[in-house]
Amino acid sequence: MLYEMTVPQFTKMLKNLNHILDKGAQFAEAKKFDVEVLLNARLAPDQFNLIRQVQIACDSAKLGAARLAGVEAPVHEDNEKTLPELKARIDDVIKYLGSFKPEDFNGAHERKISQPRWEGKYLTGSEFAIEHALPNIYFHVTTTYSILRNNGVDVGKKDYLGEMPFKK
Amino acid sequence: MLYEMTVPQFTKMLKNLNHILDKGAQFAEAKKFDVEVLLNARLAPDQFNLIRQVQIACDSAKLGAARLAGVEAPVHEDNEKTLPELKARIDDVIKYLGSFKPEDFNGAHERKISQPRWEGKYLTGSEFAIEHALPNIYFHVTTTYSILRNNGVDVGKKDYLGEMPFKK
Repeated sequence: MLYEMTVPQFTKMLKNLNHILDKGAQFAEAKKFDVEVLLNARLAPDQFNLIRQVQIACDSAKLGAARLAGVEAPVHEDNEKTLPELKARIDDVIKYLGSFKPEDFNGAHERKISQPRWEGKYLTGSEFAIEHALPNIYFHVTTTYSILRNNGVDVGKKDYLGEMPFKK
Repeated sequence: MLYEMTVPQFTKMLKNLNHILDKGAQFAEAKKFDVEVLLNARLAPDQFNLIRQVQIACDSAKLGAARLAGVEAPVHEDNEKTLPELKARIDDVIKYLGSFKPEDFNGAHERKISQPRWEGKYLTGSEFAIEHALPNIYFHVTTTYSILRNNGVDVGKKDYLGEMPFKK
């Protein structure tokens, strides 16, 4: 279940993130302004800008999966400045998530998960997934969405949620 | 696992939501403006205001739990206009969530879950929890947070995430 609730859903949310960034680019083109205005926008002066929100969303997904599987994640340098660079970062993490198999998550529930800033303290894999990784990725995808929405981009809830696997 | 990833975490997020609303109230008081300015704020003219964001966050939690357990949820009339009313709504849903036990979720994984606007289509309980209920509650809590942040309220990521159950 930990694999199912993280890797496929992280992948879906990163694809949705790519999609709302495309909508931002279309809006910038239609209104004839540089898309980098959107990339550097934020909702408060002491908040991370859109670029950083996307980088952290990517890291929440990448590090979330890696830590649950007990492997070392590839490093990204956080040096993206343009939309193509940002989209390449997202695609790179989507590809990385695709390298995980459900069996890589065997034992993830009870795995002790920590990170440097936690000063030796840990969460179990379940706690980490439910209370940390998931709320974090949703926070940064939603904040990216909100920055675009605040700047007039025509994004809606369906763009954020993506397609549902409806059955009849 | 479906109970564990929804009911306790929904409860935690609603408590965090209550907490960030309190920070909004303190800010309004310090700056000597009516807190209803914040309650009616939004990030775009065609976006729901803060009151509606909180109502939908409450409904995502309430209906999420009820549908997974296969029971009918109590109805709320969406008539909150003041901060005390809004906080009472949140407290009411937190209390409702507390009425569920893990065994109420037996069979939830495979339960067919639908809602009127889905026109007879359904999701399995797992799909509903992972792809619909969770992203929705995080979306509306984060959007509430963003509206406050955009208006100068000193909320930070820790207020959104809440306490982590760290172990040594």
